[in-house]
Amino acid sequence: MAAELGYDGVELAVRDPGATDANAVARSLRDARLQVPAIGTGQAFLADGLSLSHPDEGERRRAIERMEAHIHFAAQFGAAVIVGLLRGRISGASAATHHRLEQSLDAILPLAEREKVPVLIEPINRYETDLLSTVDEVVSLADRVGSPVLAVLADTFHMNIEEVSIEAALRSAGARLRHIHAADSNRWAPGWGHLDFPSIIKTLRGIGYRGFLSAEILPRPDARAAAHQFIEYLRPLLSEAVHPKGGYA
Amino acid sequence: MAAELGYDGVELAVRDPGATDANAVARSLRDARLQVPAIGTGQAFLADGLSLSHPDEGERRRAIERMEAHIHFAAQFGAAVIVGLLRGRISGASAATHHRLEQSLDAILPLAEREKVPVLIEPINRYETDLLSTVDEVVSLADRVGSPVLAVLADTFHMNIEEVSIEAALRSAGARLRHIHAADSNRWAPGWGHLDFPSIIKTLRGIGYRGFLSAEILPRPDARAAAHQFIEYLRPLLSEAVHPKGGYA
Repeated sequence: MAAELGYDGVELAVRDPGATDANAVARSLRDARLQVPAIGTGQAFLADGLSLSHPDEGERRRAIERMEAHIHFAAQFGAAVIVGLLRGRISGASAATHHRLEQSLDAILPLAEREKVPVLIEPINRYETDLLSTVDEVVSLADRVGSPVLAVLADTFHMNIEEVSIEAALRSAGARLRHIHAADSNRWAPGWGHLDFPSIIKTLRGIGYRGFLSAEILPRPDARAAAHQFIEYLRPLLSEAVHPKGGYA
Repeated sequence: MAAELGYDGVELAVRDPGATDANAVARSLRDARLQVPAIGTGQAFLADGLSLSHPDEGERRRAIERMEAHIHFAAQFGAAVIVGLLRGRISGASAATHHRLEQSLDAILPLAEREKVPVLIEPINRYETDLLSTVDEVVSLADRVGSPVLAVLADTFHMNIEEVSIEAALRSAGARLRHIHAADSNRWAPGWGHLDFPSIIKTLRGIGYRGFLSAEILPRPDARAAAHQFIEYLRPLLSEAVHPKGGYA
């Protein structure tokens, strides 16, 4: 359905690459002429309780190993790996939690650099995690860690809740911005809430963004109508420099 | 501090009126020349687990009795009582949950009518409850229940997440709108996020809203700065028909 509707790729959500047949996935995507810009890892937190900032070193080690498996998996598709909920939550002191997360990233990033797999950290709104909710926090983290593959994934639904200005936050991410989750203010398809997508697209063009716009949207009123609205609403706003792509969360 | 900064009233959050000395509260508010537009009841849910839509009849009875105590308490101040989290969450079928809530309201409203105490139902965003998240849902409920004291409390932070259009939702509430929680998109004071307050105030004027604008805002960067920003930012936007008022959640 995705390619037929005009999408260029699909984002995959993978709990454990060890339990996934990469060859079969690659074959079916090739048949459907779809790229994979990014792999989501949230299920490793939600289903397996893994956290890159866990206070226990053995638990952090398990999360690091899972990320390494995701990086190998992503490399086969030329995809990035998303660090969403897998970063964990603040436990004990905030500074110590941030420090543990940075140590975990330091352990993971050499492999990501060798495999040329971008690691995307997504600011997530306060209700889902208390660790890294704004673009500026993630940009600061990326500056401290200093790896060329560490980048920002901006999700417009989360930004609507957390950013003082969505446009200013996108500009502040600048070249660090490598992926976008596009959803309207209510997580419905763009145009069905109150975000100013003409202004958002203009801002992305202004900073030279050339990545995907990924549809992380609710399948409402149903999946096909939402996927159709996403493409039909955004197409007129897009230059060739920005490609829309599908994939429900 | 509230009156000195230019506020006309304070919203009270009361867990259990039976454990509160109404006379002492009334005295200190009179000394501070502050009205009480509304009483919040969320702590009765958060601390005592009470729910007006609870599947168990005995539990619903406890929540109804707590609401009746709140109504007697509010009557002493000429205040309204807010039904926020105290409505509970969807448990089992959605329609059955709504029905239990309506039965509880039917049990409470005759007292509220006799005491002339408005009962305000607040749409709350999806992360805090799954029962009644939009103004239209609450207006439908109010139409079905049909009591003249049942009304809508609109919170601009919640509306930013749930409403397709904040202005259209306010217009749709119309005369049912009796109270406003004003906060910016990030729960900071108005002007420190990205909501369009000039447009919101204009809409309120258009529907003849004459209630309070209550500051349900984060005390950031600190309580005094936030309370000051609220007044200073909104004052130029307000006609005499709309009064700002303070009170942190």
